[in-house]
Amino acid sequence: MRVSGAAASGLQATLELRRGQVEAALRRTVGSGRAPRVSAAIEDSLFAPAKRLRPILALLVADVLRGEPESVLPAACAIEMVHTASLILDDLPSMDDAALRRGRPTCHVVHGEATAILAAFALLNRAFELLGEGWTGGPDASVRSGLMRDLAAAIGLDGMIAGQAKDLEMTEKVIDFPTLEFIHSRKTGALFTASAELGAAAARARPAERHAVAAYAKNLGLAFQVVDDLIDVTGDAGAGKDVGQDLKKTTFVSFSGVAGAQQLARELVAASIESLREFGPKADPLRELANYVVTRTK
Amino acid sequence: MRVSGAAASGLQATLELRRGQVEAALRRTVGSGRAPRVSAAIEDSLFAPAKRLRPILALLVADVLRGEPESVLPAACAIEMVHTASLILDDLPSMDDAALRRGRPTCHVVHGEATAILAAFALLNRAFELLGEGWTGGPDASVRSGLMRDLAAAIGLDGMIAGQAKDLEMTEKVIDFPTLEFIHSRKTGALFTASAELGAAAARARPAERHAVAAYAKNLGLAFQVVDDLIDVTGDAGAGKDVGQDLKKTTFVSFSGVAGAQQLARELVAASIESLREFGPKADPLRELANYVVTRTK
Repeated sequence: MRVSGAAASGLQATLELRRGQVEAALRRTVGSGRAPRVSAAIEDSLFAPAKRLRPILALLVADVLRGEPESVLPAACAIEMVHTASLILDDLPSMDDAALRRGRPTCHVVHGEATAILAAFALLNRAFELLGEGWTGGPDASVRSGLMRDLAAAIGLDGMIAGQAKDLEMTEKVIDFPTLEFIHSRKTGALFTASAELGAAAARARPAERHAVAAYAKNLGLAFQVVDDLIDVTGDAGAGKDVGQDLKKTTFVSFSGVAGAQQLARELVAASIESLREFGPKADPLRELANYVVTRTK
Repeated sequence: MRVSGAAASGLQATLELRRGQVEAALRRTVGSGRAPRVSAAIEDSLFAPAKRLRPILALLVADVLRGEPESVLPAACAIEMVHTASLILDDLPSMDDAALRRGRPTCHVVHGEATAILAAFALLNRAFELLGEGWTGGPDASVRSGLMRDLAAAIGLDGMIAGQAKDLEMTEKVIDFPTLEFIHSRKTGALFTASAELGAAAARARPAERHAVAAYAKNLGLAFQVVDDLIDVTGDAGAGKDVGQDLKKTTFVSFSGVAGAQQLARELVAASIESLREFGPKADPLRELANYVVTRTK
């Protein structure tokens, strides 16, 4: 499936609208306290220019399945907080030692390493607190308990943390394709999948619907990462990331070449869209999002 | 109130029993996955010799209020996981740069800094996952949501994280007593208070009961910290900690002198015990615990 010019422009408007909603909700829900330096580090990291793809995915799923995107908005914010926490940690001197992120100096460069670590810890904590608190029009405590389990599983010892640990272990080593997939299905795929699952759970989706959007999101997350690797090589440095460390790592491009990675991204997006077959036309916003992810240039 | 020899020996048996329960439950609930290095770092940190005072406090409160200590056991494990995560972070090179903890080399010394940070992150995540999962005989999802909010508040930007941030900010600076109390009421007091609150909530305590045990635990936590400072100065180095960094910091002993800190600890424990007045004799295990905290020598 190709996306038409009109659909693309409709999608851009949708993405802008949803991004605005997510950022306004993040500002309302980020929390305050008596740790001004940590709060400043959180603000800088959370409100740097960002695509907000994960929370937007949660909103689109809730919208497609139930027509109530706002019902999942605070949970979507929790996901973005976890994602931001993971970026702060990935950039630390003991991890990727990155100086640039989202076009700006990284959190530890600006705020110091200790404050950066505390900011990441506080973001993870606040994400779970949000799900514990609940929100007007949102799901009840038993559904929110399920959201929490999904989110924790995506983060935990077979989720993002396992992906990051393997990524660090494999820096400057030759790795095979299953290992590359292991790393990125966890570092990126797990939180994409959790985003779709949270959207589905908040929309009280049936198990079959939930599995379909989870399969969609898993492949979409991997496609997103493949395209990220392509942009690092072929893009105009607009990604705003410090690419030095990436040279020490196997990427989908260094593994498969540019043409091979482009082919892989197309296949992943096709598989992703295929998972939505049962939904019919109502899932078009998710199909458009998948096409956007694979055609984006920054 | 003084604790008699018989009561002290009864308390020792209680502490041993409860510690055994906590450690067995921690082994069952710690979780596994596909990040073996991170799992090894978690095991080493979580199962180093420890007093388990915070989870024991939660169990004793649930026992005193409802006679069902096991109903709070997984929540008590969650608290110990958060506490262990905070110790791993406190010891990092960018924070206290400590080489010893609980008598052993610190987590980052053994496992490297990146793995230590991921272990702390995984422990925090697993703590919330446990509360999200629930357990047989435990409270329902709405009560567990409340536990999660209490725990998150104890950790967050006016809890442990604020205490740690202020502690780092004030290293090698002259500080006043309110600042010293700010730091330790958050670094230590907040999680003691949350332990009592989780025990009370799991026991479906009335608000007045809950407030009473929270006030008890808040003063107990501060008393614990004052005694810790005293042991660092007067003890036989059996605390197993790296005391180098503490010399750069104001402690209750450096602020008030040994006699002044001893007097402060006695006053805090007296205030702590006073909060239990309405409970009558059934709260004696909590009174004994308070006397143990102030008379311990390691």
